[in-house]
Amino acid sequence: MQLDHGSMLQQGLDGEHGLPAATMERLRRRYPAVRGEVESRREAGEYGFFDLASQRETVSQIETFAEGLGQAHEDIIVLGIGGSALGTRALLSAVRGPRWNEWDDEARDYYPRLTVLDNIDPSTMRHALGRIDPRRALVNVISKSGNTAETLAQYLVVRGWLEEALGPAADRHLVFTTDQARGALRDIATRDNIATLEVPPAIGGRFSVLSPVGLLPLALVGVDVEGLLAGAERALERAGADGGGGGSGGGGTDLEANQPALFGGLLWAADTALGARIHVLMPYTDRLRDFGAWFCQLWAESLGKRVDRQGGVVHAGPTPLAAVGATDQHSLVQLFMEGPYDKVVSFLTVADLGDDMVIPEAPGLPEAAAYLPGHSLGELLGAEFGATARALSSNGRMNLTLGLPDLSPRTVGELVMFFQLAVGYAGVWYGVNPFDQPGVELGKQLTFEALGRPGYQEVPGP
Amino acid sequence: MQLDHGSMLQQGLDGEHGLPAATMERLRRRYPAVRGEVESRREAGEYGFFDLASQRETVSQIETFAEGLGQAHEDIIVLGIGGSALGTRALLSAVRGPRWNEWDDEARDYYPRLTVLDNIDPSTMRHALGRIDPRRALVNVISKSGNTAETLAQYLVVRGWLEEALGPAADRHLVFTTDQARGALRDIATRDNIATLEVPPAIGGRFSVLSPVGLLPLALVGVDVEGLLAGAERALERAGADGGGGGSGGGGTDLEANQPALFGGLLWAADTALGARIHVLMPYTDRLRDFGAWFCQLWAESLGKRVDRQGGVVHAGPTPLAAVGATDQHSLVQLFMEGPYDKVVSFLTVADLGDDMVIPEAPGLPEAAAYLPGHSLGELLGAEFGATARALSSNGRMNLTLGLPDLSPRTVGELVMFFQLAVGYAGVWYGVNPFDQPGVELGKQLTFEALGRPGYQEVPGP
Repeated sequence: MQLDHGSMLQQGLDGEHGLPAATMERLRRRYPAVRGEVESRREAGEYGFFDLASQRETVSQIETFAEGLGQAHEDIIVLGIGGSALGTRALLSAVRGPRWNEWDDEARDYYPRLTVLDNIDPSTMRHALGRIDPRRALVNVISKSGNTAETLAQYLVVRGWLEEALGPAADRHLVFTTDQARGALRDIATRDNIATLEVPPAIGGRFSVLSPVGLLPLALVGVDVEGLLAGAERALERAGADGGGGGSGGGGTDLEANQPALFGGLLWAADTALGARIHVLMPYTDRLRDFGAWFCQLWAESLGKRVDRQGGVVHAGPTPLAAVGATDQHSLVQLFMEGPYDKVVSFLTVADLGDDMVIPEAPGLPEAAAYLPGHSLGELLGAEFGATARALSSNGRMNLTLGLPDLSPRTVGELVMFFQLAVGYAGVWYGVNPFDQPGVELGKQLTFEALGRPGYQEVPGP
Repeated sequence: MQLDHGSMLQQGLDGEHGLPAATMERLRRRYPAVRGEVESRREAGEYGFFDLASQRETVSQIETFAEGLGQAHEDIIVLGIGGSALGTRALLSAVRGPRWNEWDDEARDYYPRLTVLDNIDPSTMRHALGRIDPRRALVNVISKSGNTAETLAQYLVVRGWLEEALGPAADRHLVFTTDQARGALRDIATRDNIATLEVPPAIGGRFSVLSPVGLLPLALVGVDVEGLLAGAERALERAGADGGGGGSGGGGTDLEANQPALFGGLLWAADTALGARIHVLMPYTDRLRDFGAWFCQLWAESLGKRVDRQGGVVHAGPTPLAAVGATDQHSLVQLFMEGPYDKVVSFLTVADLGDDMVIPEAPGLPEAAAYLPGHSLGELLGAEFGATARALSSNGRMNLTLGLPDLSPRTVGELVMFFQLAVGYAGVWYGVNPFDQPGVELGKQLTFEALGRPGYQEVPGP
């Protein structure tokens, strides 16, 4: 995994735009302090996600659990919303291909199918349940607080559906992933003796895909979760922030040696110094389309904050935007090329998609098609990425590229941890707390009011 | 369909933010000139999409075509990218529900399944083709110019796949939707005697879902395309711009009577007067998730422009962002609530999703869940929308709501034409040409260079 940020810099663009050398120098000078703040906050109990790579015990628990359960079921249903759903969907699609569950009948001879329900739309719910046999389904209900309204509503509907088919045996088709002690899901599990996994207290929803939140459903459908965690560990090591301790590791003062910190710093500088407040993530593969949605939550909810760490009102926060190449060259790229200079485009490229197809020869093709045969689809995708990146640069549009060797579980785990680290560092560059989300409380309160629920209290968490 | 824009106005928000009364007054005063410009440009041959509601002949041609073909096939494959794919997917999901084709086995007893391939990712291509029997598949290849690299690459791969199974009979499994005279697809169709439908010359890709581009595949899977067009006609009538002529119709000088023009004007004013350059579309249903992607193309490619109509360099263009409620309350809403005041959130609500489910009673629920039973999922969704809109307003965040009665083909057709009109008007408010996309040419040239294709010429179009 390699970050190429030359096209963020003034000299890498059309000569007029991009980050000036002086800004880069300021980033480098500030970096040791930024890193120091991450380390001291980590020692004080924040940045719990650093520990996700070293969950040997959790993983063997999940693997044992999954081995028995996965083989006994045809369908796995995840009920969750936000951080309880986005990561699982993103990682499955990355590792196995888009709509793997829908499209690959053969795979279903070996693994159950995974359906992630992340909304309370009745049309989705009816369609999803209509095709599943409750007798062969395992339902994983996921909410860190255990009190999330949407997830509880889903749970009640799906439990009714299970009970209709199974009676009291319904409980054996449920697994809850929730707080170890508090919340409605925990209470129900204790009372009804439902199997549970814990969300570690120090892990917030949007940082939880490498916790049991994502690992259980992914293991149930046969994803190599140890590979994911090995990749996460590699990202930590490369950033000089391995799980073993809070030490400064390699590159303690060299910004360029800590690529997630550099990524966060570059995007912060582009936003605050040049007004590039829209941060586009544009993978050149369908397999990372859902990863874009995961990135959007991570970036928006972590950095979009009213106050800074000192309590000053800042209304900070870049707006993340997910695009996919080559598709969105025919949708969003016109705006990226010609609109305001308010964006940074971060490309994700994959050297080996593992599954290329050659465009076949065909006799007598018109000139406008004759250049295609002999190239592979992967080559065409690569050529389009290169052309789009060069075109953006020549129009003075900031962009950078994170090159991935493949989409193995190891690389995908590294990618996830890279972005978790990046947003953890970006929080410091921006001066905000990347681990809370106070802005959603008012909406929850007003929803409860509308539904006649008396006062409530969320489980406090990072 | 009703637009409620009270929360865009200063007095509808927290008192400090939003459009001041004087800005609204300026919008109203400018409106007759804006409308006049739309009408005169239409007379000069732009705004071809106004005529899409009155294609009686095309529709009966498509319906005859579809009736014979749809019944003879199990799978319809659309090959296209951008405007050739986004609209079809959006409308099918809106009318039938998300993943209707994947999830509703029963529907497939009556209608073929539709697979829209809008990228050149080899993993997607292999998965998609792997589950389809070429002997029972009809492939609709769609490119207005007929020269789109990605679509031609898809075509060559899929044609090879068809020929392997069918030999020379492969041609009978192909239908091209393309320009009437020019381009590689037209040349191939003429030579190989492949069935074709025409993209009307005055209709650009992102305005083409109500042309044969979208109508054929939708008709093939049983969508009521006459209903879609009746809805489109209704939108034109309500905007005083019915297909019968260029006349000013009702409300010729009253901005509030022309809701698409008002929508375009409000978003333009919010961008240019208040810096709200991010335009969020947030339907409260999964069924309009894909519609968000369609909106993003329409908005970004039409308004993101380097020069204005006079050739002055402006680098204009708001950035569209697609969200879905209630899901993205747990992802993006934190940023909408607390981040910079740089957004307008346009909600889409649906009064009757036609498919509600009541949350069942369950004995002994903890207080944090006990308020839910008895409410329906639709009610919960509605309560969450109301709460989110109120919370945004009370934080001074501009928002507006487009209320839809249902998601019938008629309403969905009206919705499509509403947004096509809105962006047609927004082009005038912004002073740019909403029908070209010059910014994507450089990327195409560089791709051709990389693949060794000699100079090329696109079919010129609106």
